Amino acid sequence: MDDFDYARYDRIRPIRWTGDALELLDQRKLPFDTEYLTCRTSDDVAAAIHALAVRGAPAIGIAAAWGVVLAERDIEATDARDAGAKLEPALQRLNAARPTAVNLAWALARMRAALARADHDWRGALEREAEAIDTEDLAANRRMGALGASLIEPGSGVLTHCNTGSLATAGFGTALGVIRAGVAQGRIEQVFAGETRPWLQGARLTVWELQQDGIDATLIADSAASHLMKTGKVQWVVVGADRICANGDTANKIGTYQLAIAARHHGVGFMVVAPSSTVDMATPSGEMIEIEERDAAELHVVGGSRTVAEGIDAWNPVFDVTPHDLIDAIVTERGVIRRPDAASMRAAFGA
Amino acid sequence: MDDFDYARYDRIRPIRWTGDALELLDQRKLPFDTEYLTCRTSDDVAAAIHALAVRGAPAIGIAAAWGVVLAERDIEATDARDAGAKLEPALQRLNAARPTAVNLAWALARMRAALARADHDWRGALEREAEAIDTEDLAANRRMGALGASLIEPGSGVLTHCNTGSLATAGFGTALGVIRAGVAQGRIEQVFAGETRPWLQGARLTVWELQQDGIDATLIADSAASHLMKTGKVQWVVVGADRICANGDTANKIGTYQLAIAARHHGVGFMVVAPSSTVDMATPSGEMIEIEERDAAELHVVGGSRTVAEGIDAWNPVFDVTPHDLIDAIVTERGVIRRPDAASMRAAFGA
Repeated sequence: MDDFDYARYDRIRPIRWTGDALELLDQRKLPFDTEYLTCRTSDDVAAAIHALAVRGAPAIGIAAAWGVVLAERDIEATDARDAGAKLEPALQRLNAARPTAVNLAWALARMRAALARADHDWRGALEREAEAIDTEDLAANRRMGALGASLIEPGSGVLTHCNTGSLATAGFGTALGVIRAGVAQGRIEQVFAGETRPWLQGARLTVWELQQDGIDATLIADSAASHLMKTGKVQWVVVGADRICANGDTANKIGTYQLAIAARHHGVGFMVVAPSSTVDMATPSGEMIEIEERDAAELHVVGGSRTVAEGIDAWNPVFDVTPHDLIDAIVTERGVIRRPDAASMRAAFGA
Repeated sequence: MDDFDYARYDRIRPIRWTGDALELLDQRKLPFDTEYLTCRTSDDVAAAIHALAVRGAPAIGIAAAWGVVLAERDIEATDARDAGAKLEPALQRLNAARPTAVNLAWALARMRAALARADHDWRGALEREAEAIDTEDLAANRRMGALGASLIEPGSGVLTHCNTGSLATAGFGTALGVIRAGVAQGRIEQVFAGETRPWLQGARLTVWELQQDGIDATLIADSAASHLMKTGKVQWVVVGADRICANGDTANKIGTYQLAIAARHHGVGFMVVAPSSTVDMATPSGEMIEIEERDAAELHVVGGSRTVAEGIDAWNPVFDVTPHDLIDAIVTERGVIRRPDAASMRAAFGA
């Protein structure tokens, strides 16, 4: 990937640090308005995370890290230890902004650890750690892009779900990074994206993000995925992950599991792409994951318009779990695990 | 089903013949407005079919039959043969209103045949035939309801797709008729309905229709179906059909095929419910069915609001084909075919 033309294929940055403020691309307004929200305090950042102005597990973690730097600007402290105590309330508020996003807690833990080992330049240490979390994410995504794309035969079509792109990360994206790299290398000829009900991240974000980079993508209804696979136009389903268990079972956006079943039925490959920070070796298998169920109201309103009669019940799980035996490859920045199981996951990520 | 309380479980009639006009429940305005559109000419009926004010293959056929009666009121003719010639332009306009709905052509063929065998009372013959098409559909649905419900074990949960209810038929419904009967008999404890993108018939129509009859139904995103099956809450998927081929392969609303794959994966039963007029023994298998693909714009707008950026391509197939080997039972008013194939279909429906 040395000669990869990143400037051409990756133009969007959802998170910009200006030196004294954090600018977040307001994803609630996409694809019609491209507006950055300026956060000057850590509470501004917490509010933006809570309100979904920034979304995607890696992006949330990065934004929170910069939120800690903004918090540091607002305190006086005698040393790193004193700063740690004074910053803790701001960290707790950031952590509470979306408690289920694993990368949020992970990024804040890194910021705490950086402060714990800092010398008198604890302010600089915090800023360097936030910068590192940001740039490491981008580097990991580029590495995953190269690794994942290498699995895809030239002339392939791919289907993705939700948004796992630059918008969800520091840049380049996870699953969408693999697709970017695959398109750039001429391996991928056709990209399909599911709408991703109920939030429509595929319809609102993914196809727009790819359009910005000159990559044509075709939108489909989520329920058209199996029919698409039957036509032979798709060789790989490429998705992200919210959590990967010790045996390879993967929690991701609702609908992912259905795509994995359909992919296996049609002999289509199924690839999960996520940074190693998503791997949770403390959770043995997918059955241990509690699936967040959100308000029924999200299914009553579609794209801002109410479509359902009053008094109708709805069941709105936000994630589902794809068992490892339906996954052909898990790609992290550390490498590719084919046909993941507890043994291959342990070999790659330790106990 | 002798003691079935139809008045309690089936209150909606989308098509009402007043004696000199046809009233159609305007399904474009549901679930928020319950307005009947009054058609006084056959061209009013053709326009209503074209504009989707009335939908569902059986309902379209019934409306068209009454449209022929309205056309008959507008002509003078010396005998049945003369009437046939004079009515033909109106029949052609009705047939062109939605040329892909198989029941539309079937109903018009019945009206032509009734006229061909009529005596001097050809006006009465046409009216009696339209009445027969209407009442036979309701009777067939009630029969299918009893047959289909008998396959469902007490305490079951069911999932349906699109709208196959009273709104799509003369009354009672096909797949939704089975669900009505199953609920009334205490066999079905929980009903789930998929939204059915892109037109949202499940969200707009099915859950509302069941609500009118006091049947609780839970709406889900189409992409949550597999996750639902994994919870064990669903024992049968019950769907309608737009066309059933000679080997049992079934064309139905996009997303049906995906449900069939997921049902088989989870050991959940998959039942197709449709009147025998939907069976097309002249089409050997599903590969011969051309799938209608509609305008990409239907995926750009959700519930009246645009959600997708300008210039985005979309693929919008309206139907898909479920191969017979994923179907556990086909239910028509003539009986139940378990594990349908070419031989069992031929035994039931002839060559």
